[in-house]
Amino acid sequence: MSDAYAVRRERLREHCSASGFDAALITRSANVRYLTGCPPCGASLLLTRERVLLALPDDLPPDDTGQHALGEDIPRLAVPRETDTALAAAEAAGRLRVRDVGVEEHDLTVSRHRCVTELLSDARLTDLSRAVERLRVVKDEHELADLRIAAEIADQALGELLESILVGRTERHLAMELERRMIDHGADRAAFPVSVGTGTHSGMEGHQPTDRRVEEGDFLTVVLGAQYRGYGVSTARTFVIGAAPAPWQVELHRLVFRAQRAGREALGPGVPQNAPDQAAREILQGAGHTEHSPRPVGHGIGLEIREAPRLGPTDMGKLDNRVPVTVGPGVHIPGKGGVRIEDTLVVRPLEEGGPELLTITTKELLAL
Amino acid sequence: MSDAYAVRRERLREHCSASGFDAALITRSANVRYLTGCPPCGASLLLTRERVLLALPDDLPPDDTGQHALGEDIPRLAVPRETDTALAAAEAAGRLRVRDVGVEEHDLTVSRHRCVTELLSDARLTDLSRAVERLRVVKDEHELADLRIAAEIADQALGELLESILVGRTERHLAMELERRMIDHGADRAAFPVSVGTGTHSGMEGHQPTDRRVEEGDFLTVVLGAQYRGYGVSTARTFVIGAAPAPWQVELHRLVFRAQRAGREALGPGVPQNAPDQAAREILQGAGHTEHSPRPVGHGIGLEIREAPRLGPTDMGKLDNRVPVTVGPGVHIPGKGGVRIEDTLVVRPLEEGGPELLTITTKELLAL
Repeated sequence: MSDAYAVRRERLREHCSASGFDAALITRSANVRYLTGCPPCGASLLLTRERVLLALPDDLPPDDTGQHALGEDIPRLAVPRETDTALAAAEAAGRLRVRDVGVEEHDLTVSRHRCVTELLSDARLTDLSRAVERLRVVKDEHELADLRIAAEIADQALGELLESILVGRTERHLAMELERRMIDHGADRAAFPVSVGTGTHSGMEGHQPTDRRVEEGDFLTVVLGAQYRGYGVSTARTFVIGAAPAPWQVELHRLVFRAQRAGREALGPGVPQNAPDQAAREILQGAGHTEHSPRPVGHGIGLEIREAPRLGPTDMGKLDNRVPVTVGPGVHIPGKGGVRIEDTLVVRPLEEGGPELLTITTKELLAL
Repeated sequence: MSDAYAVRRERLREHCSASGFDAALITRSANVRYLTGCPPCGASLLLTRERVLLALPDDLPPDDTGQHALGEDIPRLAVPRETDTALAAAEAAGRLRVRDVGVEEHDLTVSRHRCVTELLSDARLTDLSRAVERLRVVKDEHELADLRIAAEIADQALGELLESILVGRTERHLAMELERRMIDHGADRAAFPVSVGTGTHSGMEGHQPTDRRVEEGDFLTVVLGAQYRGYGVSTARTFVIGAAPAPWQVELHRLVFRAQRAGREALGPGVPQNAPDQAAREILQGAGHTEHSPRPVGHGIGLEIREAPRLGPTDMGKLDNRVPVTVGPGVHIPGKGGVRIEDTLVVRPLEEGGPELLTITTKELLAL
């Protein structure tokens, strides 16, 4: 595995070389993790043509939990907790007399950037323009393996919940139980706060669980994701509580199901990024549903829960092979409720069977 | 309560006026919340001499949970989720023809700052130098009331846990149970991930709970805090499992207890910020315990779990009245375990009874 990190760093070196940088200072935690395996802890990475140095706080817990296991091949610089690791790495860069340094201007605050500039007064600082984020788009087999495990954990937690009694329990409790179950099944943590929305809250984007209790006849929307070794997935399902869904519930669920399927089926290498969104949106709009602000139907997912590529209506790039993305349209009718269905899938060519579905919990309208 | 926000904004206006700014663009979420009551949601605040404008995402959940309740007196600008609210606020500032704008350079990334600069090409942008953070140091009665409730919630959750069977349970499960109990008692959430360390993990700073199970004879260190209406507290306690603590455990607990008490007793208005640290450190060092890197014994606490003032060995300012701080020394003996004891207290003059202790769970060495 430490080889995989070395390969990634070599690709960044090639990018730096081509862009005229003799060093890169990486501060964004997902990028540091991608290049070293180091979990988020405020570490910074200095990469020059010949060297690599990981500056990290000196008081990290020992490795007995495995959570801070690092490739032993990376030279480390232990920095007192009160000191910014980016500044420690910049100081080291200064001693190496680097001249052109790529920095992450979308991550460094103006204050930190100023301090780095002062420490490297003989060098020129230039934005790396999300170079590491671009390297991260297409996943290697280590990453896909972690994503598969994360998806399996979320599926297990959701499956167990569906077997329990739901009526009378609050959104908050159901959300907490799902988070606990994911950790029990080996997740680092929930990839994001679990959202549970019942009744009028169902189908809402970004709903924060409340003390509303599940009632007979409710729609119940669950949005959850596990994080495993830093890699997260996201899945949304909507169920109905009680034996007999109302006709409007059956109809709305069928509509969102169709839209989500159309979005999934539009995925493929070489396909425009906005194709899945268009496919899903056409179906929802055809039935008269337009969301207040047009949200992208999905996005890339990996070390960050929202990363490149974005699958929005105006995103014009092309999808690549081996890119994990979410596809998750939804409809919410104020005062009534709604449906949201989301999967995490990996873009694959048709010859390999098309998109690889990671989140396999059924999308049928289960009556619980 | 909306009056309190208006008073705070007026104080910031006075600061701006004195510093020659005709507008302030506030992006740091704790600062936006302090000035408007708006919980963290990516909102930005524009404050000019006569106006106030809160730019916030247009898809926030409705107010039925109370979590997004805002003072109705603040004009709002709904911004599509895909747009940066700081840029929307900057555009609005441009239309108002502001000339000197204070911005938060410790919060804005270089990229965002550049976009703001482009939108306000006729204005001069200058760092606010943490002006809002400085306003936030001394708390008003609304804030102290919320902190008291947060502390009460954490005490309740911890008290309940102490009544249950602990032997055989994992650190992870105990931590999750404490988080659940705090939410049950009305917390917004845990103020930070609860830390539970048992046996060799006890007394460690920043320990992440593992699957280690509580055993007879262990030290058990719990570090927890509730967040209530945005305000957090922090408390740490160390107990021993089983009927008879070993002599070294009794001795080490007594030592940290004494150091923590000395730190607490050193608090007072007008006292140097480093006095509590010195008082606690002297006792620990007198017994031969020196931590690897000298961590401050405490820090301010409120809308952020670590905020000004810092109570470190080299911090030379003076403490003010009505400033909530933590005091939490600890000793960890590698391979053996340790003790950490922390309280959240409000600095008060002796005439008013001295420091107000918020986290009242006993600090005695309970044998559980």
